[in-house]
Amino acid sequence: MKIEVVENVRLSDDGAAVIILDQTLLPNETKYLRLHEPRDLYDAITALRVRGAPAIGIFAAYAMYVLARQSKAKNYRGLYADIKKHRALLEFARPTAVNLPKQLHRMEKLVGSMPKTPIPQILFAMRKEAEKIQREDIDMCRAISEHGLSLVRDGNGVLTYCNAGPIATSRYGTALGPIILANERGIELDVYCCETRPLLQGARLTTYELYKAGIDCTLVCDNMASILMKDGKIDAVFVGCDRVAMNGDVANKIGTSGLAVLAKYYGVQFYVFCPSSTIDQQCNTGAEMKIELRQEIEIKEMYFEQPVAPHGVRCYNPAFDVTDNHLITAIVTEKGICKQPYLESLKQFKDA
Amino acid sequence: MKIEVVENVRLSDDGAAVIILDQTLLPNETKYLRLHEPRDLYDAITALRVRGAPAIGIFAAYAMYVLARQSKAKNYRGLYADIKKHRALLEFARPTAVNLPKQLHRMEKLVGSMPKTPIPQILFAMRKEAEKIQREDIDMCRAISEHGLSLVRDGNGVLTYCNAGPIATSRYGTALGPIILANERGIELDVYCCETRPLLQGARLTTYELYKAGIDCTLVCDNMASILMKDGKIDAVFVGCDRVAMNGDVANKIGTSGLAVLAKYYGVQFYVFCPSSTIDQQCNTGAEMKIELRQEIEIKEMYFEQPVAPHGVRCYNPAFDVTDNHLITAIVTEKGICKQPYLESLKQFKDA
Repeated sequence: MKIEVVENVRLSDDGAAVIILDQTLLPNETKYLRLHEPRDLYDAITALRVRGAPAIGIFAAYAMYVLARQSKAKNYRGLYADIKKHRALLEFARPTAVNLPKQLHRMEKLVGSMPKTPIPQILFAMRKEAEKIQREDIDMCRAISEHGLSLVRDGNGVLTYCNAGPIATSRYGTALGPIILANERGIELDVYCCETRPLLQGARLTTYELYKAGIDCTLVCDNMASILMKDGKIDAVFVGCDRVAMNGDVANKIGTSGLAVLAKYYGVQFYVFCPSSTIDQQCNTGAEMKIELRQEIEIKEMYFEQPVAPHGVRCYNPAFDVTDNHLITAIVTEKGICKQPYLESLKQFKDA
Repeated sequence: MKIEVVENVRLSDDGAAVIILDQTLLPNETKYLRLHEPRDLYDAITALRVRGAPAIGIFAAYAMYVLARQSKAKNYRGLYADIKKHRALLEFARPTAVNLPKQLHRMEKLVGSMPKTPIPQILFAMRKEAEKIQREDIDMCRAISEHGLSLVRDGNGVLTYCNAGPIATSRYGTALGPIILANERGIELDVYCCETRPLLQGARLTTYELYKAGIDCTLVCDNMASILMKDGKIDAVFVGCDRVAMNGDVANKIGTSGLAVLAKYYGVQFYVFCPSSTIDQQCNTGAEMKIELRQEIEIKEMYFEQPVAPHGVRCYNPAFDVTDNHLITAIVTEKGICKQPYLESLKQFKDA
């Protein structure tokens, strides 16, 4: 069975813009945006038009190239200064995921290594590098999916959270990859998707991707995970992640840590899927991770017909939480499956 | 400080109708409905225009009186047959809470005990009985609130779930009662309210009640409870409940069991508030409780501007879950506070 791949990020054919699927309009509208202004590129990340740690990384790499093309610099020094400025702008669009600064750094480093090279050749190299980042992500997702598939059996119940599918990455996705691969190979899984409040990425994006791929799934509210596990419907929870500390603590979408506590209590396997680039050598434990706080409007108004609470009521809206390493059965990367003790297993697999 | 009491259920002055605050329109519209047709009375329960186990019980008692008045029966036997018919109709409006069948039974039993009484006197007695049910509920809520207040101290963080306040009961409410009482007595609590998907009773009703009462609170999504507890912001979780089994298992709004698991894991107190009438002597354990399944539309469409998942995607929408007794720190009734072993403590307090 051939799956319908949702294309989320690419460079325009003329190389002058990044084209993205506006994820904020899904599942009701499929609209592609052509972005080239620095502010629009920055806003696309903050407003979650492009989201998912790997997709943001790819997007940022293309954005660096698109912005470099616009540079009016006459020499290398001027171009490199512009590159650094763009990097600084984009880097602060979102604080939690490691891919964004990582890919920005990779693009800047590339330019830093070419001081004797004419500008057109630098631009050409930047484009190739961004395309390579995307290609690498496709290969990585495939490898992650293969490893993940080894963790489930025909008839298993799997609970997904937020969105770590094709839209958030490239092709198969990370946490959704094994599910898509299982379907291609005739392995039947009973898939439940948590809607993932407040921005409903699980409802809007994950069920959309599965639906497009012809895979049956059941949507539930986040607070229904406990009854599903209690009733024995779930064998494994599959989540993506935005950052892994060296001790195996994991930052992912708000609510992930709660699912992990439930999984531990009910004896359900809890698997985290991510490229090894998500393992952050600079980060020893989850306590060092900065958690992004987002606007109240996302809880009270966004997506709703009318505000769902009185105007004067305050909201608290952290975008991520940290899941303790001892709640995680395994962390699945493209290089293999890491288990406790993570301090040792992650070192082996961390991105060079 | 005087709190603004939200009136949710009452008999019309002429006794011909039940007047309710339509809870489905809150917090954006405060609209009272005058109901007297059997179908409208039944629908008010199923559509959650009136909700909260105690409020449903009060409503059902008034509804029995209003419907009895409409009886064309010429004698006792005819009236009693009508009463039984109305009871059968209303009893099946919602399956989980114990108050509905309990108060219906009380009204029917009253009529059953008056075979020699003229019809006008029976009707008069029914009206008095329904009013008594409501008065008893007010007294009960007050007593529950007093007991509950003994469980918290100034500066504590309290997490509420769904709605067990004045709208769901009478006056103070059950789980919200200690918070309102604390405010009256100058005890400051840091109150967080879970929005409670899919019907958002926590956002729409609980924050509305607290706001009306001049009590500061912070609204969060249900999946944020874990980070709040992990960050040490919560000392106690306060929930209401719809049915208590004799072993202390508790049925309450879907998601309650997940909060209880989190509370246990993070060392947070988990308190259940309910009238002793909620203790069901016929029910030995949570396994015997019937869980109501509700429509998919509540998850995918209700309250939203546009559907939040593709049309073909299936939803699973259980309205309640069962929390295991060993996760519950105490069950607070108007008669006192029950702790483990519940098999003994509940027997003492159960409604006669």
